[in-house]
Amino acid sequence: MKLPSSLENLVHSLSSLPGIGPKSAQRMALRMTNWDIEKLNLIAENIKGISSLGHCQECGFFSEKDLCDICDHKERRDQDQLCVVESSLDLIAIEKSGQYKGLYHILGGLLNPLLGVGPEQLNLDSLVYKLENVAYKSVILALNPTIEGDSTCSYLQMTYPGHSYERIGFGMPMGSSFEHMDPLTISKAFENKKSSF
Amino acid sequence: MKLPSSLENLVHSLSSLPGIGPKSAQRMALRMTNWDIEKLNLIAENIKGISSLGHCQECGFFSEKDLCDICDHKERRDQDQLCVVESSLDLIAIEKSGQYKGLYHILGGLLNPLLGVGPEQLNLDSLVYKLENVAYKSVILALNPTIEGDSTCSYLQMTYPGHSYERIGFGMPMGSSFEHMDPLTISKAFENKKSSF
Repeated sequence: MKLPSSLENLVHSLSSLPGIGPKSAQRMALRMTNWDIEKLNLIAENIKGISSLGHCQECGFFSEKDLCDICDHKERRDQDQLCVVESSLDLIAIEKSGQYKGLYHILGGLLNPLLGVGPEQLNLDSLVYKLENVAYKSVILALNPTIEGDSTCSYLQMTYPGHSYERIGFGMPMGSSFEHMDPLTISKAFENKKSSF
Repeated sequence: MKLPSSLENLVHSLSSLPGIGPKSAQRMALRMTNWDIEKLNLIAENIKGISSLGHCQECGFFSEKDLCDICDHKERRDQDQLCVVESSLDLIAIEKSGQYKGLYHILGGLLNPLLGVGPEQLNLDSLVYKLENVAYKSVILALNPTIEGDSTCSYLQMTYPGHSYERIGFGMPMGSSFEHMDPLTISKAFENKKSSF
């Protein structure tokens, strides 16, 4: 049995969405056959809409204007703190925690020689410019605890020395148990033990 | 922190997709920011495309023409068998099993007085027309084993008698175990035991 081509096309498009397999795509498409034309048009327009989405000139986060919401209202933030992150997704996750009130810089990746990602592929020029022109009290390297994150941190520290770099703390995630945690994380948690808690 | 409105709009639209919550929608939207404009346009057009999707005049399945792929090529099917199903989704699932080679009729629902679904809400007129004009060897009621499915089967049998109705078999699903099966299914499986297997 052949599905009508408009349905096939939609299933094919939906299964290109991140995290959606052919089966979910088909379920979605069939349910969407009940949608009215306004609802279909709205989602279609909103999808096209992000093609015009740009990036903040200062931090690299998504923005429709020259500056993103954070950089455009620096007065609300701790301007002597800079947090270096890999991606916009990481920035959003950190903002959700509500713990950090400073400014951001998005690298757009991590050093990964195997995948051909060298320093020239990262958003480093504007970071170096900021480091040289702003006297940050602290430059927090909030890069993932992976080999790539580690080597990017080392690279920054060695290539652009003289700034008060800090790396985010590693240890047991909240609500976890030793029983289910990997040995490396437990080692890190012991390494990073504190007397005040 | 406020996301750019084009991104917010897309997250909102994506979370209206069946089975997609706000968190998955945000993850999808952020990944889609890497898509080029052609890919965004394609999915948008394919979404709009299904607004023109119609239904087969004979069986009620999705179709862009008067007749769906199955009804348009009846010569490939067992024309003396009719399978009555609730929805297009059920038809697709049955076709995938490859077991059934006859024709279909989609009711578009099941009787459900509590939700105000009576016989006049179902696609019954064309079913009755077919039953009266075609001498089917067997009319298989492939309706879900629920109260609504049961009562719809009884209704059809009582209101339009004289046809060789059969209902699909109930029992243990393949690969299941008694340990994890509900008592009603186990009862049905015992009721439907066979000497040839």
